[in-house]
Amino acid sequence: MARIVMKFGGTSVADLDCIRNVAQRVKKETANNNQVVVFVSAMAGTTDQLVKWVEQISPLNDAREYDMVVSSGEQITAGLLALALQDSGVPARSWLGWQIPFKTNKMHGAARIDKIGTDEITKRLEEGTVCVIAGFQGISDDNRITTLGRGGTDTSAVALAAALNADRCDIYTDVEGVYTADPRIVPKAQKLDKITYEEMLELASLGAKILQTRSVAMAMSHKVRVQVLSSFTNKPGTMVVDEDEIVEKQIVSGITYAKDEAKVTLVGVHNTPGIASEVFILLADGNINVDMIIQNETQDGKKTDLTFTVAEKDLGKAQNILKSATNIHHEAIITDKNVAKISVIGVGMRSHAGVAASMFKTLADKRINIQVISTSEIKISVLIDAEYTELAVRALHTTYGLDAQ
Amino acid sequence: MARIVMKFGGTSVADLDCIRNVAQRVKKETANNNQVVVFVSAMAGTTDQLVKWVEQISPLNDAREYDMVVSSGEQITAGLLALALQDSGVPARSWLGWQIPFKTNKMHGAARIDKIGTDEITKRLEEGTVCVIAGFQGISDDNRITTLGRGGTDTSAVALAAALNADRCDIYTDVEGVYTADPRIVPKAQKLDKITYEEMLELASLGAKILQTRSVAMAMSHKVRVQVLSSFTNKPGTMVVDEDEIVEKQIVSGITYAKDEAKVTLVGVHNTPGIASEVFILLADGNINVDMIIQNETQDGKKTDLTFTVAEKDLGKAQNILKSATNIHHEAIITDKNVAKISVIGVGMRSHAGVAASMFKTLADKRINIQVISTSEIKISVLIDAEYTELAVRALHTTYGLDAQ
Repeated sequence: MARIVMKFGGTSVADLDCIRNVAQRVKKETANNNQVVVFVSAMAGTTDQLVKWVEQISPLNDAREYDMVVSSGEQITAGLLALALQDSGVPARSWLGWQIPFKTNKMHGAARIDKIGTDEITKRLEEGTVCVIAGFQGISDDNRITTLGRGGTDTSAVALAAALNADRCDIYTDVEGVYTADPRIVPKAQKLDKITYEEMLELASLGAKILQTRSVAMAMSHKVRVQVLSSFTNKPGTMVVDEDEIVEKQIVSGITYAKDEAKVTLVGVHNTPGIASEVFILLADGNINVDMIIQNETQDGKKTDLTFTVAEKDLGKAQNILKSATNIHHEAIITDKNVAKISVIGVGMRSHAGVAASMFKTLADKRINIQVISTSEIKISVLIDAEYTELAVRALHTTYGLDAQ
Repeated sequence: MARIVMKFGGTSVADLDCIRNVAQRVKKETANNNQVVVFVSAMAGTTDQLVKWVEQISPLNDAREYDMVVSSGEQITAGLLALALQDSGVPARSWLGWQIPFKTNKMHGAARIDKIGTDEITKRLEEGTVCVIAGFQGISDDNRITTLGRGGTDTSAVALAAALNADRCDIYTDVEGVYTADPRIVPKAQKLDKITYEEMLELASLGAKILQTRSVAMAMSHKVRVQVLSSFTNKPGTMVVDEDEIVEKQIVSGITYAKDEAKVTLVGVHNTPGIASEVFILLADGNINVDMIIQNETQDGKKTDLTFTVAEKDLGKAQNILKSATNIHHEAIITDKNVAKISVIGVGMRSHAGVAASMFKTLADKRINIQVISTSEIKISVLIDAEYTELAVRALHTTYGLDAQ
């Protein structure tokens, strides 16, 4: 007997047939004598519709009311799944975030979980009831509904898996697992059987929309065994596990790309100490995340060009902040949306030299110019002209020996 | 300064434009320096959709999960209306049933309100905040969402109006008030300025879908001044008030009809004492409400025909119960769905004789056969062949002097 948390995303509960299909998967787990908690998202498209209504009725909307409206989508699927389970003979009951409760802070729209009540769920699991829980939501100290941000149901599931000491947290989605690269542009991409938390965290932050970044960080810190798999096939997925569990480590596990960044260059900035920090403090105050940064001195050393990337959606805001910052003297602001960030990820890099060198050589061979470079312990990212994205990803996939035979 | 509870039904909040319109009406009340609580239903069609999903996914659905799913509709409109109010400069906040709380019993799907918390709402009203509350829902002792039954938002509104000692409870709907008869079949029907609680209660029970019956009973017992009016025009509606407030009472205030009943006749029942009670106890155990009843002895007094009406939707169930009741000897069961109940209502009847006589004469003049008669202190109902419905209602409307000039 195992204790399993299952999570089904919006496409897995898109309509009544999908919900019935989910009920059958859950039933299979209970037939194996497992204790099962199920988290559901809203039916595909529902949350988008609710967010649209909120934005249309009040462009500068109050986050507390935003949470009131958008949390309703999960409530519908939780109730419907409990009914589908009951209808197929499985004892089931549904709960909302406030009923568990998932206690969160008051950061409406992006709340963080403080504490989870497990008494009732534990009791119900021991009675043999499947516990269906509306994901993505919690309750603040002042008794208001909070939501955890888009993709938050992943975090709900992993958090409860940690609190319940679950044997596994299965995240069902519309892909079969984690791939060495996006199969839509790399036909030879392969599904990974296992991936480490660290690698998954990089993948999630780099925009591979498989798991919410926070859920991976939480799984890593609580050592929750997470599996990513498809609700539409019966194949095993990708296990996200501790590094120790992977005996034969690949040097590189995956290649990702992201086209939603934009490059900003502040030309001819006065090269005085602290100028970079002034720029980035201003942007941080404006809630703008800066990703890659490089600084080049001019030959005389008096001026410098400062280049960095921000999310494309924040570009206008960043420009406005910089233009109105009278204390930062510069000659011009050059921006470029037409860039892509290509990343090579692998925990094996730690013990293997030459990964960066072969990345740069591969790109040079294809005559792709590298604009910016940034690295972490297990990742190398480069910024290139967006039109070379697919070419670069495929070439690197081959270089690191990831192509399927 | 007055304290006002406003309630808007599904057609009044059907889309974002309707919700903005509601916000403007609420704003007008606050501009008059009034304290305002607003109850909202789900957007028109939403509850029907949710109920359909529930019934499709689990025909014998668990009422606790039914309540989980269907209560989500009001949550959306409550949040959206709070946002619309904030957007037009009115301080507003939304609450769900469990947050107030509306404590109810555990009769899921048709819960009754036990107690309402008023501390937070009173505080917020005094601060000048408009309190928007999701109607139709509450919370049981075991922390589960309950719903009050279709039309339950009327009851939520009247109940809180009573608890808050509100000066008025305005029920906004898609008609301009209470009419002397259905204007769709009686072109000369007139809107009533005032109607008594007793009359309104009869109207609601007889199927005039203006107010939920329970809300009227509650208004009557707590003397809540209820107004029924349209959210699409700016005309005054119909005030539902105590009999003392109406100086010049009409003998008859309104004529109603209902086509959703069916007639059942048990032919040749053994005429032994207690046989009728046996029949009706069986039906009550099956949760079937019986409306009109007549019993005719045969000439020898040994057998009797027992005729009664039930809701058309319960007819099949009633037949099954009677067929399997081996202790009730009868020769045949005859049923007829093709009947209509026509009712004449008015508190003035108490002091005026001859109302029934003129009703029967009017129908006889039109050659309409009366199948069953039932009366209360302020109402006379007859069952007739359904195809005479419109003819009967118009003729009675003229007889009692209700036609508009």
